[in-house]
Amino acid sequence: MTTGVRRRMGVEERRQQLIGVALELFSRRSPDEVSIDEIASAAGISRPLVYHYFPGKLSLYEAALKRASDDLAARFVEPREGPLGARLLRVMGRYFDFVDEHGPGFSALMRGGPAVGSSTTNALVDSVRQAARDHILVHLGVQEPPARLELVVRSWISLAESTALIWLDGRRIPRAELERQLVHDFAALAAVSAAYDAEMAALLHRILRDETADGPFADLVTRLTALAG
Amino acid sequence: MTTGVRRRMGVEERRQQLIGVALELFSRRSPDEVSIDEIASAAGISRPLVYHYFPGKLSLYEAALKRASDDLAARFVEPREGPLGARLLRVMGRYFDFVDEHGPGFSALMRGGPAVGSSTTNALVDSVRQAARDHILVHLGVQEPPARLELVVRSWISLAESTALIWLDGRRIPRAELERQLVHDFAALAAVSAAYDAEMAALLHRILRDETADGPFADLVTRLTALAG
Repeated sequence: MTTGVRRRMGVEERRQQLIGVALELFSRRSPDEVSIDEIASAAGISRPLVYHYFPGKLSLYEAALKRASDDLAARFVEPREGPLGARLLRVMGRYFDFVDEHGPGFSALMRGGPAVGSSTTNALVDSVRQAARDHILVHLGVQEPPARLELVVRSWISLAESTALIWLDGRRIPRAELERQLVHDFAALAAVSAAYDAEMAALLHRILRDETADGPFADLVTRLTALAG
Repeated sequence: MTTGVRRRMGVEERRQQLIGVALELFSRRSPDEVSIDEIASAAGISRPLVYHYFPGKLSLYEAALKRASDDLAARFVEPREGPLGARLLRVMGRYFDFVDEHGPGFSALMRGGPAVGSSTTNALVDSVRQAARDHILVHLGVQEPPARLELVVRSWISLAESTALIWLDGRRIPRAELERQLVHDFAALAAVSAAYDAEMAALLHRILRDETADGPFADLVTRLTALAG
């Protein structure tokens, strides 16, 4: 319902409308395939008027990315209740909701698109990664992570990104399976690190202690033990 | 020994020299901090002469990236002999040699730098990932990978990239530990996938069958079993 807006909008309201229209178009096609003409048309205004609110396509792209980044970062917010595995699984569900909703826009951003490499774009992508890292550390109950935990958390976030990108490329594996798999991957990366480091082993033991017998972590350990045997 | 070259060089020889000089400078500082003046000075020629061989900084950057990409892809070449874990560990050793040698250049490329987002740059980065994927599948003895194996291989390559980037940011963990850890991460990601998919489980069993009792995979399974118990 983006056309047919007849009443006069305020500047900020119009900017927000254009951002919404752009994100809607970027969810179906890559941003570099979407013209300002199309955005104007979908918003029911003239092309010059779009330029009145955004000086160029890059600035509209960056504003759209800002809203999407805030949205994505918010999906990592999760109450500190219950076993960690179940929390992480809910976060992954919301993460894939976002990826699903923003498909081509998400791919373009992560693979390199028109605004990629701009300092604003890089800073926004980094801010989402940082927010994800901070939330995860809160859930792990760690304030100053040792280097090996920092590595596990940051590299797992990158793994979630690449898994989502590969999923978007054909959607050949059900997303629910990948959400569960990423929770297990987190446990697996932590376990590999813990296998060689006493501090990580203590942390992993503390996490596993709070897991229920039917939670995703316990499930993984059972299955891995069976595979190894 | 890049200065003091007095004799007249051919066009291709001069281009190769400038690429070498640029890569040497990019190994110590980020490409966007290195000027054409510095490259000219390090090569012992004038600034206008650099532009005679490369029309702009981007084209020199792309040529340097091309050489570095070919170099990196070549490090995944490994004889198909002995247990897979040991092969992968040797590949990781050469991968971290490359990361170590190219530090700031590697970071700038992966994190977003002056030429990032150009179609040439993206295509080169993708070509290295594709070469790495192809080599790994050859070692796994798989010609047409199922979707889940494709995901494990591609997401593990992305994990190796992010692990290398995080390592470069302060070098707080010994690289030998990370090389071994990435081999284990490959086994762990494959194991997580195998835990829920019969085809992956069969593949993993075949790989583990060829492993020696003191190889990295066997070592990991022993340690994970101990952690779980």
